[in-house]
Amino acid sequence: MSFSIEKIKPALFVLHTNKIFELTVIAIIVFSALITGAKTYDIGSTMANIVMWLDMFITIFFLFEVMIRLIAEPKTFDFFKKGWNVFDFLIVTISLIPMDGNETVLLARLLRIFRVLRLISIIPELRILISALIKALPRMGYIVLLMFIIFYIYAAIGSFMFEHINSQLWGNISISMLTLFRIATFEDWTDVMYETMMEFPLSWIFYLSFIFLTAFVFLNMMIGVILDVMQQEHEEYYRETGQGEAGEVHWMKEKMIAMDAKFDRIEVLLTKNVNKRTK
Amino acid sequence: MSFSIEKIKPALFVLHTNKIFELTVIAIIVFSALITGAKTYDIGSTMANIVMWLDMFITIFFLFEVMIRLIAEPKTFDFFKKGWNVFDFLIVTISLIPMDGNETVLLARLLRIFRVLRLISIIPELRILISALIKALPRMGYIVLLMFIIFYIYAAIGSFMFEHINSQLWGNISISMLTLFRIATFEDWTDVMYETMMEFPLSWIFYLSFIFLTAFVFLNMMIGVILDVMQQEHEEYYRETGQGEAGEVHWMKEKMIAMDAKFDRIEVLLTKNVNKRTK
Amino acid sequence: MSFSIEKIKPALFVLHTNKIFELTVIAIIVFSALITGAKTYDIGSTMANIVMWLDMFITIFFLFEVMIRLIAEPKTFDFFKKGWNVFDFLIVTISLIPMDGNETVLLARLLRIFRVLRLISIIPELRILISALIKALPRMGYIVLLMFIIFYIYAAIGSFMFEHINSQLWGNISISMLTLFRIATFEDWTDVMYETMMEFPLSWIFYLSFIFLTAFVFLNMMIGVILDVMQQEHEEYYRETGQGEAGEVHWMKEKMIAMDAKFDRIEVLLTKNVNKRTK
Amino acid sequence: MSFSIEKIKPALFVLHTNKIFELTVIAIIVFSALITGAKTYDIGSTMANIVMWLDMFITIFFLFEVMIRLIAEPKTFDFFKKGWNVFDFLIVTISLIPMDGNETVLLARLLRIFRVLRLISIIPELRILISALIKALPRMGYIVLLMFIIFYIYAAIGSFMFEHINSQLWGNISISMLTLFRIATFEDWTDVMYETMMEFPLSWIFYLSFIFLTAFVFLNMMIGVILDVMQQEHEEYYRETGQGEAGEVHWMKEKMIAMDAKFDRIEVLLTKNVNKRTK
Repeated sequence: MSFSIEKIKPALFVLHTNKIFELTVIAIIVFSALITGAKTYDIGSTMANIVMWLDMFITIFFLFEVMIRLIAEPKTFDFFKKGWNVFDFLIVTISLIPMDGNETVLLARLLRIFRVLRLISIIPELRILISALIKALPRMGYIVLLMFIIFYIYAAIGSFMFEHINSQLWGNISISMLTLFRIATFEDWTDVMYETMMEFPLSWIFYLSFIFLTAFVFLNMMIGVILDVMQQEHEEYYRETGQGEAGEVHWMKEKMIAMDAKFDRIEVLLTKNVNKRTK
Repeated sequence: MSFSIEKIKPALFVLHTNKIFELTVIAIIVFSALITGAKTYDIGSTMANIVMWLDMFITIFFLFEVMIRLIAEPKTFDFFKKGWNVFDFLIVTISLIPMDGNETVLLARLLRIFRVLRLISIIPELRILISALIKALPRMGYIVLLMFIIFYIYAAIGSFMFEHINSQLWGNISISMLTLFRIATFEDWTDVMYETMMEFPLSWIFYLSFIFLTAFVFLNMMIGVILDVMQQEHEEYYRETGQGEAGEVHWMKEKMIAMDAKFDRIEVLLTKNVNKRTK
Repeated sequence: MSFSIEKIKPALFVLHTNKIFELTVIAIIVFSALITGAKTYDIGSTMANIVMWLDMFITIFFLFEVMIRLIAEPKTFDFFKKGWNVFDFLIVTISLIPMDGNETVLLARLLRIFRVLRLISIIPELRILISALIKALPRMGYIVLLMFIIFYIYAAIGSFMFEHINSQLWGNISISMLTLFRIATFEDWTDVMYETMMEFPLSWIFYLSFIFLTAFVFLNMMIGVILDVMQQEHEEYYRETGQGEAGEVHWMKEKMIAMDAKFDRIEVLLTKNVNKRTK
Repeated sequence: MSFSIEKIKPALFVLHTNKIFELTVIAIIVFSALITGAKTYDIGSTMANIVMWLDMFITIFFLFEVMIRLIAEPKTFDFFKKGWNVFDFLIVTISLIPMDGNETVLLARLLRIFRVLRLISIIPELRILISALIKALPRMGYIVLLMFIIFYIYAAIGSFMFEHINSQLWGNISISMLTLFRIATFEDWTDVMYETMMEFPLSWIFYLSFIFLTAFVFLNMMIGVILDVMQQEHEEYYRETGQGEAGEVHWMKEKMIAMDAKFDRIEVLLTKNVNKRTK
């Protein structure tokens, strides 16, 4: 059988890279998403039946689509070397697991929603966007850690000081952190403040310093990300030889070194000339 | 009659490009906007009558203004080649449609409001702004699509999980998306969260992850647009020859190539010189 | 008397540019601001008396300070050529107007608050900041006009459609614009929306399109201002000769032109040389 | 004893710069933070006992860790020359102060929370972030002063005008400033506005002008900080010789001066050559 697969591989590859095939897949994904959405409405049992059959059809279609791409790959295991392929494979296989118990129906539905994510792996522009987002992650890691430390300290202070005032907001350090996140989004933060100011009139210092710190760190993060992205763009631009200002400057530097060697030769020639004459 | 029109065309063209004529049109548009606004106040019947007559006058004035511009155009059909002309023509013709039934009065009023938009087509600085906004649209298209996918997935999860808690907020996928948009604007989002946390204590993960994702994508969008605009400005600057740093660098590169040819000639001359002497 | 003033002018000029004198003025302004603030607290009549005397002293001190600067100026009328001087003069003279009636007491107090603004005219760094803000104004003017048009159209639509639902929010075009500003700041905007959605289920389109438009225009404004400021910085940098990258590139271009003339001379010399030999 | 310390100094230095030692310290700090957090939950007395013993152990461990670093320093007093060492030393010594009275228990707990801050002094990336934040401070100082002046003036006006309407919001200048900060964060600002608009229908001017001013100054601050950071990055890039566009341009300028001297020599040689021949 492995033999027959080898034979159809080129045909499958053609099918897989075909534009119409891709558009069909996109259409099916969007349709699949609409069905998932339709289930959230109250629909009649006839309609529910149709939706169920369509859903089954989509599951099978997706299985075939991934299998075609898996087989179309010249070397089968290279398929799993690309992150996006693994991503597609996982989404398809998970939706295959049969779930009939009442308990797991919800889970099955949730997993099926994630099929919409396949839109990202199919549309190249979205893939580029996601790659850019992932590149920005490490830069943000340490900022998030710094913010977490700020939140942790304020949450600890908050739960020690204000627990007896309102245990729903300051009951323990986890609840306090959620309350602080709410304050960072300016969501009814004055209600929280006025409540504690009844007992601690100076507690506005706690809230204002927290808002200033988080806003300040956030501002820094934003600028950091902007500068990082600009630096990367600049370097990519630079790598493309000759094009753009940076490329031209680099070209000029190389040229200058070459020209300088030429001048050295000219000077040597001239000096010889003069010396010979003087002899 | 076509003959007589040909004769007055130059005169109309002079009128149309006249500064005072343009200022008059701007004044009429502002006046028209104020009348539209005045109708929202409770005004006496005498006043209402005056407003009605003024409104009719403005409609006729606008009709004439557009017709003058249409006729003033050397080739009549070139008029419709400019987007802004089509824009003006549509606004004027739509406000001409007679609507007297009670039902359509509201619609007629609404259409008349859009006459204020003519300010944009008349003031050049505003036209430039709008053009810049339109240029930024394609860049934003895919980001909006990505955000829509995020909203869709979260809305589907939300309506499956939280529908029985509050069907007014999570009733179906459309309502859920509206609720999520509200959460993205931080508008009373904690009320929504606290409600679902009663049953699902871990549902804060749903809200916080959603806020982080949308904020992150929005941040990326903003940076993307900034960089795009900067890139465009840079390139425009570059195209204007000789001016600015990029232009000077380009000039230097061209000059260097020319100079290098000169050095080659000099070296050839010198080598000949030395060779002759050695002979 | 004019004679004696001429004599003391240099002495006054020394006093006016004296560092200690300036710090004293700053201290007095801050003190004056604190007194103005103190009046908002309930203070005893003894204290109120002291505050009144202090206030009178500050008014007189300010009068003297401005007069010293006015006389210290070599040509008296040049004093009014600087915007900041006019600014100071107005603040001082207005606070001199005697106001005793109960009605005008409030006005007198308000005018006295503006003395704090003198801090801006005295501290150079703040004057630079204000100048930068004023420079950014024209760029923002047209954006504000564009935003006003958007607000006007939405306000007109809003007051036609929703007036009968809630006249407190949509009563007439002015009230509607205030309501829209509130929506643009995301302040309880869902309450406004849910109310109108009862009657017009599709009115969410009105609110969402408005939020998108204003956010979009605001984003554009921010980028515009950033790019404008960067352009200005770049040009200032360029003007300072020789320093910075742009300056060096300009220097190199000039140098290249000079060097090229030299090469032409060299080539001419060499060609002569060869020609002579061949003869 | 001083002698024996001198002997073990190199060994301590090795221990201190050891990677595993550092990771252990980080682990202990995180663990210490978790214990501080655990205290905010209701825990049994056995557990509370364990936490108390662990806390004591951590206090002693931190004391030893700082002492090791203090002794490991070649010159003992150089230890206090680095800001981060003083920072660590203060945190450790403060947590040593024995506090047993009921009154001071809260204070002791609060001080212990600040041990989490040691994470910042140990992780280099966080130290860089904090240094960057501190560098941005002076730039922000004058903006904060400007904002304070705006707040002060509006607060004074607010407390004069609106005190009798709602003394909880406009009672005196301090309370008014807090209310204005709330308005600047858009937190239920319309409730504040609608209340005063009952008596002063034009008071919306007060709120809108305030929002515009603070937003405008904030926008300017953000741009200022972005440009400042970019300028700094550019200069650092420039300093690293040869690398990057700015470095290459500088290299070219230097090279051009050297090459020009060479051309002068060539021209002299040639002129001699020609002159000799003509003789």
